[in-house]
Amino acid sequence: MDLYHKKKIEIVTDAAALNDVAQLIKRCGASGYTVIKGVAGQGSRGVRVSGDIFGVFENVMVIVVAEKSMAERILSEVMQVLEARPRMVLVSDVEVLRDDHF
Amino acid sequence: MDLYHKKKIEIVTDAAALNDVAQLIKRCGASGYTVIKGVAGQGSRGVRVSGDIFGVFENVMVIVVAEKSMAERILSEVMQVLEARPRMVLVSDVEVLRDDHF
Amino acid sequence: MDLYHKKKIEIVTDAAALNDVAQLIKRCGASGYTVIKGVAGQGSRGVRVSGDIFGVFENVMVIVVAEKSMAERILSEVMQVLEARPRMVLVSDVEVLRDDHF
Repeated sequence: MDLYHKKKIEIVTDAAALNDVAQLIKRCGASGYTVIKGVAGQGSRGVRVSGDIFGVFENVMVIVVAEKSMAERILSEVMQVLEARPRMVLVSDVEVLRDDHF
Repeated sequence: MDLYHKKKIEIVTDAAALNDVAQLIKRCGASGYTVIKGVAGQGSRGVRVSGDIFGVFENVMVIVVAEKSMAERILSEVMQVLEARPRMVLVSDVEVLRDDHF
Repeated sequence: MDLYHKKKIEIVTDAAALNDVAQLIKRCGASGYTVIKGVAGQGSRGVRVSGDIFGVFENVMVIVVAEKSMAERILSEVMQVLEARPRMVLVSDVEVLRDDHF
């Protein structure tokens, strides 16, 4: 079993920022990302409730897996793009299968 | 890039227990948490199906990030509050951005 | 607080493959798994959009926690079962509470 070490970045922010996040991920050269919808949260910047009628305040979790250097570029961009928005950004170590493309 | 080491706790349980979990997280002093809805599961304590008409058996994943000592308090409380309920509790290492509040 | 080290496998694939994935997890002897619905993604194998009217292209994330040796069996089976399908498979280290069953 060949496994390769990568960095996993999880970004929770409001759904309205999803396009900006997707753009920055592509700009940094990542080949893809995963989006989990139906995310709610409560944090120090106020309550973020999922499921309101307009969906404006719906949150999403964006997951992107990248080499360490690309992950650092993505994190740097995330800090700028989501500067004023509610967000949670987590970085962790993962391993991926040999033939998957990241 | 300043990153800080934290513990990430992921709690999967039935949606009916969400309020109890949220209360215990606040009681332990965490500044926030994230909830993923639309979660289903099958485990040793029986099938937990998401999407039933009353939503009673809908599961949720609650994610909370905290310093190690606070994480240990949360885990201890989780064991008591969710003692008799179906649950999966995972603990892992994550890094967070400098200016995020946990 | 007694915590035990396990491997966490996260499998993102299309919802149509969920039954195959559930079967392989059971075949490998795991006691359970968690499914997150409402997952979308964009990857090198093309756009995977969640929410289309037939739900055929809806993605799911399957999470399974197992001992290292069982995790390796699951990964080996996943590579065969999902060989031709869009997928993202991540492996990471987690700790679980003593009295949970994995």
